[in-house]
Amino acid sequence: MTNQQRFMQEAIQSALQGMHKNGGGPFGAVVVKGEEIIARGNNRVTATNDPTAHAEIMAIREACKKINSFQLTGCDIYTSCEPCPMCLGAIYWARPDHLYYACTKEDAAAAGFDDEFIYREINLPHPDRSIPFISISQKQALVVFEDWVKKSDKTPY
Amino acid sequence: MTNQQRFMQEAIQSALQGMHKNGGGPFGAVVVKGEEIIARGNNRVTATNDPTAHAEIMAIREACKKINSFQLTGCDIYTSCEPCPMCLGAIYWARPDHLYYACTKEDAAAAGFDDEFIYREINLPHPDRSIPFISISQKQALVVFEDWVKKSDKTPY
Repeated sequence: MTNQQRFMQEAIQSALQGMHKNGGGPFGAVVVKGEEIIARGNNRVTATNDPTAHAEIMAIREACKKINSFQLTGCDIYTSCEPCPMCLGAIYWARPDHLYYACTKEDAAAAGFDDEFIYREINLPHPDRSIPFISISQKQALVVFEDWVKKSDKTPY
Repeated sequence: MTNQQRFMQEAIQSALQGMHKNGGGPFGAVVVKGEEIIARGNNRVTATNDPTAHAEIMAIREACKKINSFQLTGCDIYTSCEPCPMCLGAIYWARPDHLYYACTKEDAAAAGFDDEFIYREINLPHPDRSIPFISISQKQALVVFEDWVKKSDKTPY
Protein backbone atom coordinates (compact mmCIF):
# COMPACT_ATOMS: atom_id res chain seq x y z
CA MET A 1 0.00 0.00 0.00
CA THR A 2 1.42 3.40 -0.95
CA ASN A 3 1.33 6.42 1.36
CA GLN A 4 -1.34 7.90 -0.87
CA GLN A 5 -3.49 4.80 -0.50
CA ARG A 6 -2.98 4.89 3.27
CA PHE A 7 -4.10 8.54 3.46
CA MET A 8 -7.14 7.74 1.34
CA GLN A 9 -7.93 4.84 3.65
CA GLU A 10 -8.10 7.39 6.49
CA ALA A 11 -10.50 9.56 4.49
CA ILE A 12 -12.68 6.51 3.86
CA GLN A 13 -12.59 5.68 7.60
CA SER A 14 -13.73 9.24 8.42
CA ALA A 15 -16.62 8.80 5.98
CA LEU A 16 -17.69 5.49 7.55
CA GLN A 17 -17.38 6.69 11.14
CA GLY A 18 -19.20 9.96 10.44
CA MET A 19 -22.06 8.21 8.71
CA HIS A 20 -22.46 5.50 11.35
CA LYS A 21 -22.49 8.16 14.11
CA ASN A 22 -25.27 9.93 12.14
CA GLY A 23 -23.18 13.03 11.47
CA GLY A 24 -24.49 13.25 7.94
CA GLY A 25 -23.82 11.78 4.52
CA PRO A 26 -21.18 9.17 3.63
CA PHE A 27 -18.23 11.44 2.91
CA GLY A 28 -14.83 11.88 4.56
CA ALA A 29 -11.63 13.83 3.92
CA VAL A 30 -8.17 14.39 5.38
CA VAL A 31 -5.55 17.08 4.86
CA VAL A 32 -1.92 15.94 4.72
CA LYS A 33 1.15 18.15 5.17
CA GLY A 34 4.43 16.38 4.49
CA GLU A 35 3.75 12.86 5.75
CA GLU A 36 1.35 13.87 8.51
CA ILE A 37 -2.45 14.06 8.62
CA ILE A 38 -3.14 17.50 10.08
CA ALA A 39 -6.95 17.48 9.83
CA ARG A 40 -9.89 15.13 9.30
CA GLY A 41 -13.44 15.93 8.33
CA ASN A 42 -16.67 14.14 7.66
CA ASN A 43 -20.03 15.32 6.43
CA ARG A 44 -22.05 16.88 9.28
CA VAL A 45 -24.88 18.57 7.36
CA THR A 46 -27.79 16.94 9.16
CA ALA A 47 -26.23 16.74 12.64
CA THR A 48 -25.37 20.45 12.69
CA ASN A 49 -28.07 21.89 10.38
CA ASP A 50 -25.28 23.35 8.27
CA PRO A 51 -25.63 22.75 4.52
CA THR A 52 -21.97 23.80 4.07
CA ALA A 53 -20.64 21.14 6.48
CA HIS A 54 -19.29 18.84 3.78
CA ALA A 55 -16.26 16.67 4.57
CA GLU A 56 -13.78 18.71 2.50
CA ILE A 57 -14.97 22.03 3.98
CA MET A 58 -14.72 20.63 7.53
CA ALA A 59 -11.20 19.30 6.89
CA ILE A 60 -10.03 22.53 5.21
CA ARG A 61 -11.34 24.67 8.10
CA GLU A 62 -9.67 22.42 10.65
CA ALA A 63 -6.35 22.32 8.77
CA CYS A 64 -6.26 26.11 8.30
CA LYS A 65 -6.97 26.64 11.98
CA LYS A 66 -4.12 24.28 12.84
CA ILE A 67 -1.52 25.98 10.67
CA ASN A 68 -2.86 29.53 11.25
CA SER A 69 -3.21 30.26 7.56
CA PHE A 70 -6.00 30.63 5.02
CA GLN A 71 -3.82 28.84 2.47
CA LEU A 72 -2.94 25.13 2.35
CA THR A 73 0.26 25.55 0.36
CA GLY A 74 2.38 22.40 0.65
CA CYS A 75 -0.63 20.30 1.65
CA ASP A 76 -2.67 17.63 -0.16
CA ILE A 77 -6.37 16.88 0.33
CA TYR A 78 -7.71 13.31 0.19
CA THR A 79 -11.47 12.92 -0.14
CA SER A 80 -13.56 9.76 -0.33
CA CYS A 81 -15.54 11.19 -3.26
CA GLU A 82 -15.04 13.66 -6.09
CA PRO A 83 -15.88 17.14 -4.70
CA CYS A 84 -19.20 18.88 -5.34
CA PRO A 85 -18.96 22.40 -6.86
CA MET A 86 -19.04 24.03 -3.40
CA CYS A 87 -16.11 21.93 -2.21
CA LEU A 88 -14.26 22.35 -5.50
CA GLY A 89 -14.51 26.11 -4.98
CA ALA A 90 -13.29 25.79 -1.38
CA ILE A 91 -10.34 23.69 -2.56
CA TYR A 92 -9.35 26.34 -5.09
CA TRP A 93 -9.55 29.08 -2.44
CA ALA A 94 -7.44 26.99 -0.02
CA ARG A 95 -4.92 26.16 -2.78
CA PRO A 96 -3.50 22.76 -1.74
CA ASP A 97 -0.89 21.17 -4.02
CA HIS A 98 -3.00 18.15 -5.02
CA LEU A 99 -6.51 16.77 -4.61
CA TYR A 100 -6.92 12.98 -4.42
CA TYR A 101 -10.43 11.54 -4.69
CA ALA A 102 -11.77 7.97 -4.63
CA CYS A 103 -15.45 7.58 -5.67
CA THR A 104 -16.62 9.54 -8.70
CA LYS A 105 -19.60 11.84 -8.96
CA GLU A 106 -21.34 9.08 -10.92
CA ASP A 107 -20.88 6.74 -7.90
CA ALA A 108 -22.33 9.52 -5.69
CA ALA A 109 -25.31 9.98 -8.03
CA ALA A 110 -26.03 6.24 -7.89
CA ALA A 111 -26.24 6.56 -4.08
CA GLY A 112 -28.67 9.50 -4.34
CA PHE A 113 -26.30 12.51 -4.25
CA ASP A 114 -26.84 14.52 -7.38
CA ASP A 115 -23.89 16.92 -7.36
CA GLU A 116 -24.03 16.66 -11.13
CA PHE A 117 -27.20 18.75 -11.07
CA ILE A 118 -25.29 21.72 -9.57
CA TYR A 119 -22.46 21.24 -12.09
CA ARG A 120 -25.06 21.56 -14.87
CA GLU A 121 -26.71 24.63 -13.33
CA ILE A 122 -23.40 26.55 -13.15
CA ASN A 123 -23.23 26.73 -16.93
CA LEU A 124 -26.83 27.88 -17.39
CA PRO A 125 -27.68 31.55 -18.01
CA HIS A 126 -28.99 33.17 -14.81
CA PRO A 127 -32.67 33.26 -15.86
CA ASP A 128 -32.64 29.55 -16.72
CA ARG A 129 -31.38 28.36 -13.32
CA SER A 130 -33.70 26.47 -10.99
CA ILE A 131 -32.82 29.02 -8.28
CA PRO A 132 -33.27 32.38 -10.07
CA PHE A 133 -30.17 34.63 -9.90
CA ILE A 134 -31.49 38.21 -10.10
CA SER A 135 -29.36 41.34 -10.60
CA ILE A 136 -30.32 44.51 -8.66
CA SER A 137 -28.59 47.65 -7.28
CA GLN A 138 -25.31 47.06 -9.13
CA LYS A 139 -24.41 50.77 -9.26
CA GLN A 140 -25.15 51.29 -5.55
CA ALA A 141 -22.86 48.39 -4.61
CA LEU A 142 -19.79 49.44 -6.59
CA VAL A 143 -18.75 51.76 -3.74
CA VAL A 144 -17.66 48.63 -1.85
CA PHE A 145 -15.03 47.75 -4.43
CA GLU A 146 -14.02 51.42 -4.79
CA ASP A 147 -13.38 51.54 -1.03
CA TRP A 148 -11.44 48.24 -1.20
CA VAL A 149 -9.15 49.46 -3.97
CA LYS A 150 -8.39 52.64 -1.96
CA LYS A 151 -7.91 50.78 1.37
CA SER A 152 -4.25 51.03 2.38
CA ASP A 153 -4.12 48.38 5.15
CA LYS A 154 -5.87 45.49 3.40
CA THR A 155 -4.77 41.83 3.48
CA PRO A 156 -5.08 40.42 -0.05
CA TYR A 157 -6.12 36.77 -0.42
CA MET B 1 -36.87 52.17 -2.75
CA THR B 2 -38.36 48.68 -2.99
CA ASN B 3 -38.06 46.07 -0.22
CA GLN B 4 -35.57 44.23 -2.39
CA GLN B 5 -33.41 47.33 -2.74
CA ARG B 6 -33.60 47.87 1.02
CA PHE B 7 -32.44 44.29 1.72
CA MET B 8 -29.60 44.70 -0.77
CA GLN B 9 -28.63 47.95 0.96
CA GLU B 10 -28.20 45.91 4.15
CA ALA B 11 -25.97 43.40 2.35
CA ILE B 12 -23.88 46.30 1.02
CA GLN B 13 -23.65 47.74 4.57
CA SER B 14 -22.42 44.36 5.87
CA ALA B 15 -19.76 44.36 3.16
CA LEU B 16 -18.58 47.88 4.06
CA GLN B 17 -18.55 47.29 7.81
CA GLY B 18 -16.78 43.93 7.51
CA MET B 19 -14.10 45.36 5.27
CA HIS B 20 -13.48 48.46 7.39
CA LYS B 21 -13.21 46.30 10.53
CA ASN B 22 -10.59 44.21 8.64
CA GLY B 23 -12.71 41.05 8.68
CA GLY B 24 -11.72 40.24 5.14
CA GLY B 25 -12.70 41.12 1.58
CA PRO B 26 -15.42 43.58 0.52
CA PHE B 27 -18.40 41.24 0.43
CA GLY B 28 -21.65 41.10 2.42
CA ALA B 29 -24.87 39.10 2.38
CA VAL B 30 -28.18 38.82 4.21
CA VAL B 31 -30.82 36.08 4.37
CA VAL B 32 -34.45 37.21 4.37
CA LYS B 33 -37.45 35.14 5.44
CA GLY B 34 -40.80 36.80 4.74
CA GLU B 35 -40.05 40.47 5.36
CA GLU B 36 -37.40 39.92 8.03
CA ILE B 37 -33.60 39.70 7.84
CA ILE B 38 -32.76 36.55 9.80
CA ALA B 39 -28.98 36.50 9.21
CA ARG B 40 -26.13 38.72 8.06
CA GLY B 41 -22.68 37.74 6.91
CA ASN B 42 -19.51 39.36 5.68
CA ASN B 43 -16.26 37.98 4.38
CA ARG B 44 -13.99 36.92 7.26
CA VAL B 45 -11.34 34.90 5.39
CA THR B 46 -8.29 36.78 6.63
CA ALA B 47 -9.53 37.56 10.18
CA THR B 48 -10.37 33.91 10.91
CA ASN B 49 -7.87 32.09 8.65
CA ASP B 50 -10.82 30.32 7.04
CA PRO B 51 -10.80 30.31 3.23
CA THR B 52 -14.47 29.21 3.28
CA ALA B 53 -15.61 32.24 5.33
CA HIS B 54 -17.21 34.07 2.42
CA ALA B 55 -20.18 36.36 3.10
CA GLU B 56 -22.81 34.03 1.63
CA ILE B 57 -21.46 31.00 3.53
CA MET B 58 -21.42 32.96 6.80
CA ALA B 59 -24.99 34.20 6.25
CA ILE B 60 -26.28 30.74 5.22
CA ARG B 61 -24.73 29.07 8.28
CA GLU B 62 -26.16 31.74 10.60
CA ALA B 63 -29.64 31.55 9.02
CA CYS B 64 -29.75 27.74 9.19
CA LYS B 65 -28.71 27.84 12.84
CA LYS B 66 -31.50 30.33 13.54
CA ILE B 67 -34.26 28.30 11.92
CA ASN B 68 -32.83 24.89 12.95
CA SER B 69 -32.81 23.55 9.43
CA PHE B 70 -30.26 22.75 6.75
CA GLN B 71 -32.67 24.10 4.13
CA LEU B 72 -33.56 27.76 3.48
CA THR B 73 -36.93 27.03 1.87
CA GLY B 74 -39.04 30.21 1.80
CA CYS B 75 -35.95 32.42 2.17
CA ASP B 76 -34.12 34.74 -0.21
CA ILE B 77 -30.40 35.53 -0.17
CA TYR B 78 -29.10 39.02 -1.01
CA THR B 79 -25.38 39.33 -1.73
CA SER B 80 -23.34 42.40 -2.62
CA CYS B 81 -21.62 40.47 -5.45
CA GLU B 82 -22.34 37.58 -7.77
CA PRO B 83 -21.36 34.38 -5.90
CA CYS B 84 -18.11 32.51 -6.54
CA PRO B 85 -18.43 28.80 -7.42
CA MET B 86 -18.05 27.76 -3.76
CA CYS B 87 -20.88 30.07 -2.67
CA LEU B 88 -23.00 29.12 -5.69
CA GLY B 89 -22.68 25.50 -4.58
CA ALA B 90 -23.60 26.41 -0.99
CA ILE B 91 -26.64 28.31 -2.23
CA TYR B 92 -27.83 25.27 -4.19
CA TRP B 93 -27.39 23.01 -1.15
CA ALA B 94 -29.29 25.49 1.06
CA ARG B 95 -32.04 25.86 -1.56
CA PRO B 96 -33.39 29.41 -0.98
CA ASP B 97 -36.21 30.62 -3.26
CA HIS B 98 -34.20 33.41 -4.92
CA LEU B 99 -30.68 34.82 -5.06
CA TYR B 100 -30.29 38.58 -5.53
CA TYR B 101 -26.83 39.96 -6.34
CA ALA B 102 -25.50 43.47 -6.98
CA CYS B 103 -21.94 43.64 -8.39
CA THR B 104 -21.02 41.21 -11.14
CA LYS B 105 -18.05 38.87 -11.29
CA GLU B 106 -16.51 41.26 -13.81
CA ASP B 107 -16.73 44.06 -11.19
CA ALA B 108 -15.07 41.68 -8.69
CA ALA B 109 -12.30 40.82 -11.17
CA ALA B 110 -11.61 44.53 -11.72
CA ALA B 111 -11.04 44.85 -7.93
CA GLY B 112 -8.64 41.87 -7.90
CA PHE B 113 -10.97 38.94 -7.11
CA ASP B 114 -10.69 36.43 -9.91
CA ASP B 115 -13.62 34.10 -9.24
CA GLU B 116 -13.82 33.73 -13.01
CA PHE B 117 -10.63 31.66 -12.86
CA ILE B 118 -12.38 28.99 -10.74
CA TYR B 119 -15.42 29.06 -13.05
CA ARG B 120 -13.08 28.28 -15.95
CA GLU B 121 -11.26 25.48 -14.07
CA ILE B 122 -14.54 23.64 -13.31
CA ASN B 123 -15.04 22.84 -16.97
CA LEU B 124 -11.48 21.60 -17.54
CA PRO B 125 -10.66 17.87 -17.62
CA HIS B 126 -9.05 16.78 -14.32
CA PRO B 127 -5.48 16.51 -15.66
CA ASP B 128 -5.63 20.03 -17.11
CA ARG B 129 -6.59 21.76 -13.86
CA SER B 130 -4.09 24.01 -12.09
CA ILE B 131 -4.70 21.94 -8.92
CA PRO B 132 -4.39 18.34 -10.16
CA PHE B 133 -7.44 16.16 -9.36
CA ILE B 134 -6.12 12.58 -9.07
CA SER B 135 -8.26 9.43 -8.87
CA ILE B 136 -7.12 6.62 -6.52
CA SER B 137 -8.69 3.78 -4.48
CA GLN B 138 -12.11 4.07 -6.11
CA LYS B 139 -13.01 0.40 -5.55
CA GLN B 140 -11.93 0.49 -1.89
CA ALA B 141 -14.16 3.52 -1.25
CA LEU B 142 -17.37 2.18 -2.75
CA VAL B 143 -18.15 0.38 0.53
CA VAL B 144 -19.10 3.79 1.96
CA PHE B 145 -21.96 4.24 -0.50
CA GLU B 146 -22.96 0.58 -0.16
CA ASP B 147 -23.29 1.08 3.62
CA TRP B 148 -25.25 4.31 3.07
CA VAL B 149 -27.76 2.67 0.75
CA LYS B 150 -28.32 -0.12 3.31
CA LYS B 151 -28.51 2.26 6.31
CA SER B 152 -32.07 2.22 7.68
CA ASP B 153 -31.99 5.30 9.96
CA LYS B 154 -30.42 7.84 7.61
CA THR B 155 -31.53 11.47 7.18
CA PRO B 156 -31.52 12.27 3.45
CA TYR B 157 -30.58 15.79 2.40
